[in-house]
Amino acid sequence: DKNGLQFETADKNFKFKIGGRIHTDYTHSSNDHFFRGGVPVQANDGAELRRGRLEFAGTFFKDWDFKSQVDFADNQVGVKDMFISYRGLDFAKINVGHQKQAFSRELQESSNDLMFMERSLMNVLNAPLVDRAIGVNLSSRGKNWTGQVGLFGESIDANNDSLDESWGTNSRITFAPLDEKTRIVHLGVAGNYRRPSGSGQLFGPSNGVRFRHETSHITNLFPIDSGALGNVEDVKMLGLEASGVYGPLSAGGEYTHSWIGRRNGLDSLSFHGWYGEAAWTLTGESRQYKEGKFHRVEPTRNFSFSKGGWGAWELAARIAGVDLNDGAFRAGEMKNFTAALNWYVNSNLRFMFNYDRILEIKDSPLVTASGGKPDDLNTFMFRSQIAF
Amino acid sequence: DKNGLQFETADKNFKFKIGGRIHTDYTHSSNDHFFRGGVPVQANDGAELRRGRLEFAGTFFKDWDFKSQVDFADNQVGVKDMFISYRGLDFAKINVGHQKQAFSRELQESSNDLMFMERSLMNVLNAPLVDRAIGVNLSSRGKNWTGQVGLFGESIDANNDSLDESWGTNSRITFAPLDEKTRIVHLGVAGNYRRPSGSGQLFGPSNGVRFRHETSHITNLFPIDSGALGNVEDVKMLGLEASGVYGPLSAGGEYTHSWIGRRNGLDSLSFHGWYGEAAWTLTGESRQYKEGKFHRVEPTRNFSFSKGGWGAWELAARIAGVDLNDGAFRAGEMKNFTAALNWYVNSNLRFMFNYDRILEIKDSPLVTASGGKPDDLNTFMFRSQIAF
Amino acid sequence: DKNGLQFETADKNFKFKIGGRIHTDYTHSSNDHFFRGGVPVQANDGAELRRGRLEFAGTFFKDWDFKSQVDFADNQVGVKDMFISYRGLDFAKINVGHQKQAFSRELQESSNDLMFMERSLMNVLNAPLVDRAIGVNLSSRGKNWTGQVGLFGESIDANNDSLDESWGTNSRITFAPLDEKTRIVHLGVAGNYRRPSGSGQLFGPSNGVRFRHETSHITNLFPIDSGALGNVEDVKMLGLEASGVYGPLSAGGEYTHSWIGRRNGLDSLSFHGWYGEAAWTLTGESRQYKEGKFHRVEPTRNFSFSKGGWGAWELAARIAGVDLNDGAFRAGEMKNFTAALNWYVNSNLRFMFNYDRILEIKDSPLVTASGGKPDDLNTFMFRSQIAF
Repeated sequence: DKNGLQFETADKNFKFKIGGRIHTDYTHSSNDHFFRGGVPVQANDGAELRRGRLEFAGTFFKDWDFKSQVDFADNQVGVKDMFISYRGLDFAKINVGHQKQAFSRELQESSNDLMFMERSLMNVLNAPLVDRAIGVNLSSRGKNWTGQVGLFGESIDANNDSLDESWGTNSRITFAPLDEKTRIVHLGVAGNYRRPSGSGQLFGPSNGVRFRHETSHITNLFPIDSGALGNVEDVKMLGLEASGVYGPLSAGGEYTHSWIGRRNGLDSLSFHGWYGEAAWTLTGESRQYKEGKFHRVEPTRNFSFSKGGWGAWELAARIAGVDLNDGAFRAGEMKNFTAALNWYVNSNLRFMFNYDRILEIKDSPLVTASGGKPDDLNTFMFRSQIAF
Repeated sequence: DKNGLQFETADKNFKFKIGGRIHTDYTHSSNDHFFRGGVPVQANDGAELRRGRLEFAGTFFKDWDFKSQVDFADNQVGVKDMFISYRGLDFAKINVGHQKQAFSRELQESSNDLMFMERSLMNVLNAPLVDRAIGVNLSSRGKNWTGQVGLFGESIDANNDSLDESWGTNSRITFAPLDEKTRIVHLGVAGNYRRPSGSGQLFGPSNGVRFRHETSHITNLFPIDSGALGNVEDVKMLGLEASGVYGPLSAGGEYTHSWIGRRNGLDSLSFHGWYGEAAWTLTGESRQYKEGKFHRVEPTRNFSFSKGGWGAWELAARIAGVDLNDGAFRAGEMKNFTAALNWYVNSNLRFMFNYDRILEIKDSPLVTASGGKPDDLNTFMFRSQIAF
Repeated sequence: DKNGLQFETADKNFKFKIGGRIHTDYTHSSNDHFFRGGVPVQANDGAELRRGRLEFAGTFFKDWDFKSQVDFADNQVGVKDMFISYRGLDFAKINVGHQKQAFSRELQESSNDLMFMERSLMNVLNAPLVDRAIGVNLSSRGKNWTGQVGLFGESIDANNDSLDESWGTNSRITFAPLDEKTRIVHLGVAGNYRRPSGSGQLFGPSNGVRFRHETSHITNLFPIDSGALGNVEDVKMLGLEASGVYGPLSAGGEYTHSWIGRRNGLDSLSFHGWYGEAAWTLTGESRQYKEGKFHRVEPTRNFSFSKGGWGAWELAARIAGVDLNDGAFRAGEMKNFTAALNWYVNSNLRFMFNYDRILEIKDSPLVTASGGKPDDLNTFMFRSQIAF
């Protein structure tokens, strides 16, 4: 059915699901001729397969679940969720394997459900440190709250090093004082602590950690870029979340603060990022909320020429910022604006149109031909999405 | 069933199919000791997994199809078809995503259906420019015609460049004045126009475009090879097709002409390629034809020791040529001959035996020990194929 | 059901199975600070996805099977089994494609069934030469024996060379004079002969052949290491096997001897490896035996809080050795001890705890800070496994 290919035994002790997603994007940029270190650069225009994933999940002997999901975009293997869950305890579910860490609603939500084509500027701080990793996660939930705590090593790439891996621990707690079908208030708080590996890697195969923003996944244009930040002693992160839904309207935001302790007498660094977003479903549907995460709009009437339905249409806007400047350390500061028009054809198909503009930028590595700031850049994006 | 694993809901609004193919090849070459630029080279003999693919396709809400197919040969990811289709319009089907471009019957036919183990010498011109790409394709068809028109970016590999991608547009129209089960006449015409990326790439991650012929997929031996051809302004291509089936006999051919406009005062180049093929099904079956493409023979009686059937047996021969010489530009000219014996065990299994010989060659980068042409080379190939 | 997702047509002529496995490991080492060639090295501690595989297998027209299995660990494609089988002959089954060669019970057994997390020190000699390859295998079996003979090229990686591939032929015969449910005697003998490629590769993309032992799959620490061994004329190998099961007890072992003929006047080399293992299933189950291979314990009562079962618990110990020294050639000699505690939750889930210690080592490339042998190293390993 619409959730992909699903099977279960008569006693429901064994279940299987085969699913997938295809996201095909096109990006065009204007006012995009810059110089970086004297070298001319511009935003790459073109089409790409943003995500092409297969998923296989199931249940064994009622209490044991597995999920496996692999991405093939760019002709490379990207192992996504790949873990075992035990659901036999009353108070918690235990996941072992490769999975998302416990931090940030935006990061934890599926790319199939995001309101905008790409996550916000705040994610510049999150993606390099709290994305999927191999480890153990305990999660629990009540009628209107969820809680998670996890202990994680690194991501999936082969560790060719002979020094110990980095590790991190994190926790996210959400609370929904109001949780009705069309009226929702969501609050959340999360923390993360991570220590580097013996050879100074913080998460992936590269040394140190790098914070930067690409204007879309295909442009290869980075208006802010910290470069590889080495000599890291540890990273502490705090995340705050608040969102609300009122009928077809929704609004919300998140805030992340990172403290980076450094070795060899270097000053510690303090960065932060945030976003605020608002959406209006023109066709009246409410965004869906479940266990501390929002899900995409399900159209009341699917699009169909013969039956006359138009699916669901959603308008959304977002303002976001990230500040990588701290004292004498100047990796850049930036705010941007994103507008979106999303067409939910049915529960499996979605077409997205995004427009993105820089509102304010400081200490960018990019300059215009006349030495000015890269703040007139326009980025237009289109996505066709199927997910099940 | 024989078409793989298939499911559909009772109302037929949702359908799923899981399929795949395994092609295992063995190649042996004789008279294959040559020199290239003074360095001794020979054809690599051995076994390889030519194709190992998984496929997952389906239909959502009746009008929306998806297809995803990934190849794992050589332990590398090769995303093949990965697109969404909309079939809700009367006059056309729209595909968005990674798919074959609209050019050449030989290129558009599935590798499961080709009469020979590898495509012809003509494909030297087509493969680098009109194979699968990310884009939009509109296709339409009537009782005895098909038409397609497409707009495409590049292939699936990650674009690490910061200049705009290359793009192309193409169209293929086929007409079948006679279309009966055992008597078919097929005609076709196609055109392609492509412009390079900002950094001079025409299709893939390498600069320019390279036309060359490998004697089989495993040999690493290239009797003609243009090297990377840069300074390209645009490429225009024309393709012509004609084929006929009369009972167990079939014959046909294609012709491709390429005009390559060049920059910086360089002369434009004009190349062409062609092939003619003929086949005889010893066991009497006719080749199958559908929507402008031929499909492999379905045996009347499957092979079975116990039931006494022998499957279908097919003899085929092909002559093909490609000319990469134009005026002072001498990238080589070549004709070859291929003979095939194909055993269709049943609708899923096929064993193929191919013999390949160079008929004539000019301006090859390869020379024999005595300085002669590499025209005594013999290539023997065997394939075991399962497809569903 | 517990064997994954399975389907068959009513007449059983067509069958399909979708399966997979997820192995997530954690390794910690102590006393692991060494020097190699003056450079400090240590065992990498951390978590990894050891195996993440999808499998798709089936039957067409009753007599023809296919199996395809791909691994995605380390974000790389690893094609495992990918072959066609013909079962229509009375006396033998024929496999064509990528599959395990006919040598060694330990190597032929699935990683889902191994008693210990990693294969023994003996496998240092086997893994580089008799693991999966592309070729043809004939297998036959009677009431209490199995026999295989195979002819193989190289493994799956792309051959970028222009010289002929290496090849090998091998055979394994097993005999079970006693084969009851709880009392088994297994005997086996195997031989392998392999010749290098035109450019001196013996199996994979690298030149020559390299024998070395990693203390676990993640540590990047190699207590013995022959380096790349070139100038190989041919390799001959002999394998011997013996095992027995008596109720919950089992014991067994294997021995491999390799003779490496060398070119250019170099002396031939003679290496050998072996292991002996014993296991006791605390909960009483017997190990399972089928067609010359052992399979993992199936618990009599699955683990369940609500129903009070505890699954199956198994204690096991292994001593193993490999000797890469021959006359003046000193690539090292080593013995180690492995203890295991395995918890079989149900037929799909298993948790494994391993402890590994070096018993004796000579001519290691590793030395301690004081110049001593690396024989105090402790390796602790944990695995969570789901397989179906």
